[in-house]
Amino acid sequence: MPDTRGKLYGVGVGPGDPELMSLKAARILKVAPVIAYFAKKGHAGNAWRSVDGQLNPDAEIVRLDYPFTTEIPADQPCYLDALTSFYDAAAAEIAERLDAGQDVAVLCGGDPLFYGSYVHLHARLAETHPCEVIPGITAMSGCWTSASAPITCGDDALVVLCGTMEEDRLTMRLKDCDAAVIMKVGRNLPKIKAALARVGLLERAIYVERGTMPEQKIERLTERRSDDAPYFAVVLVPSLRRPL
Amino acid sequence: MPDTRGKLYGVGVGPGDPELMSLKAARILKVAPVIAYFAKKGHAGNAWRSVDGQLNPDAEIVRLDYPFTTEIPADQPCYLDALTSFYDAAAAEIAERLDAGQDVAVLCGGDPLFYGSYVHLHARLAETHPCEVIPGITAMSGCWTSASAPITCGDDALVVLCGTMEEDRLTMRLKDCDAAVIMKVGRNLPKIKAALARVGLLERAIYVERGTMPEQKIERLTERRSDDAPYFAVVLVPSLRRPL
Repeated sequence: MPDTRGKLYGVGVGPGDPELMSLKAARILKVAPVIAYFAKKGHAGNAWRSVDGQLNPDAEIVRLDYPFTTEIPADQPCYLDALTSFYDAAAAEIAERLDAGQDVAVLCGGDPLFYGSYVHLHARLAETHPCEVIPGITAMSGCWTSASAPITCGDDALVVLCGTMEEDRLTMRLKDCDAAVIMKVGRNLPKIKAALARVGLLERAIYVERGTMPEQKIERLTERRSDDAPYFAVVLVPSLRRPL
Repeated sequence: MPDTRGKLYGVGVGPGDPELMSLKAARILKVAPVIAYFAKKGHAGNAWRSVDGQLNPDAEIVRLDYPFTTEIPADQPCYLDALTSFYDAAAAEIAERLDAGQDVAVLCGGDPLFYGSYVHLHARLAETHPCEVIPGITAMSGCWTSASAPITCGDDALVVLCGTMEEDRLTMRLKDCDAAVIMKVGRNLPKIKAALARVGLLERAIYVERGTMPEQKIERLTERRSDDAPYFAVVLVPSLRRPL
């Protein structure tokens, strides 16, 4: 019997500028009968904004609202349980369409397999359904390009960290690195600054908010007055190595 | 007086599959009057293969042949001098077109500001000429997608290293990491294996050659018999963290 199930696409839509999605992503989104995406309640959602209407106009849109409206520390007991139930329900909503024979494209900001929420759907659906992942330009690539900052060169080592880490772990990982990217900034900016200062990297750090988007902000971290930052802001420590 | 100089574009063309270039890259390459790219003598060049003829058919093509046909250890005295002269000459060739009012698009495999040769042109030309960089999907994103291997999740730390590093430095950097990518594999595969084994990561490592391209090879590093590898092969150590 032929497989009549729909195919799941995890589609990387890139760092924000809708023109930075790949030709392949654009081709899939132009015809997908169902398009799903994650968003925070009351917000348009970064992945949604990154596609700017370049979608099959007849597609069913499945919006998956995260259960929290503000950041909750990930070590709170309620957090993991609520998120796990949320991803279970989201996967069930998508499985229903796939089982009815519809392809479903899940929009993923940046690259789906690089810190993406998509992996929680992938883990629930990819073994039982046909599936294809389309890589995307990461948010960090968009940010260092917007900042005109070559991040690495030659045989540099790069570390990619999350602002959600403990300060000591951040500090330990930043020590002796050639270049660094710190993602998931949000409420963690004071801690990130402290860790960078402890290893002497604060002066080199660049703050980038909404890179490649019209409202992007780029400034030296030492010149930034506010400690407020969106979750998806990025701190860059470009390599000091000079091109030949 | 209006600026009559051409504009330099550093165009990220992605990891290999021509459909993985961005809409913006495709738009620029369709009209650029001059298209330049780096390649190793006697080879088509990865960036060139990644565009697969999706170019302005009337463009002048400027092929920039690296001065070496085999890998030369970067610590040999002749190496840096020859490369510096090569980049000087390449920048001069491009500056000639820019000064004559022609836009020049430089093809960059992956992302231009992430280990890209383009930075050597950028450093020579971007201060004196109008310039724009278009980010691209990195080779490593292409590789972990081809390997269906979510590389990071949650608040993982990722280290990106180069096979050209000394074994001790590789080992030190790999220690206690959540996930790792080792680029620039080439002749360094035995050293990379040794470093991974010293920190207990060899069993987790995946070897990916020409990810997203028709001839891609993906295998567990422990199952790979040959120590030969192309320079652009990648070794991945995906995070052990499981999705929620």
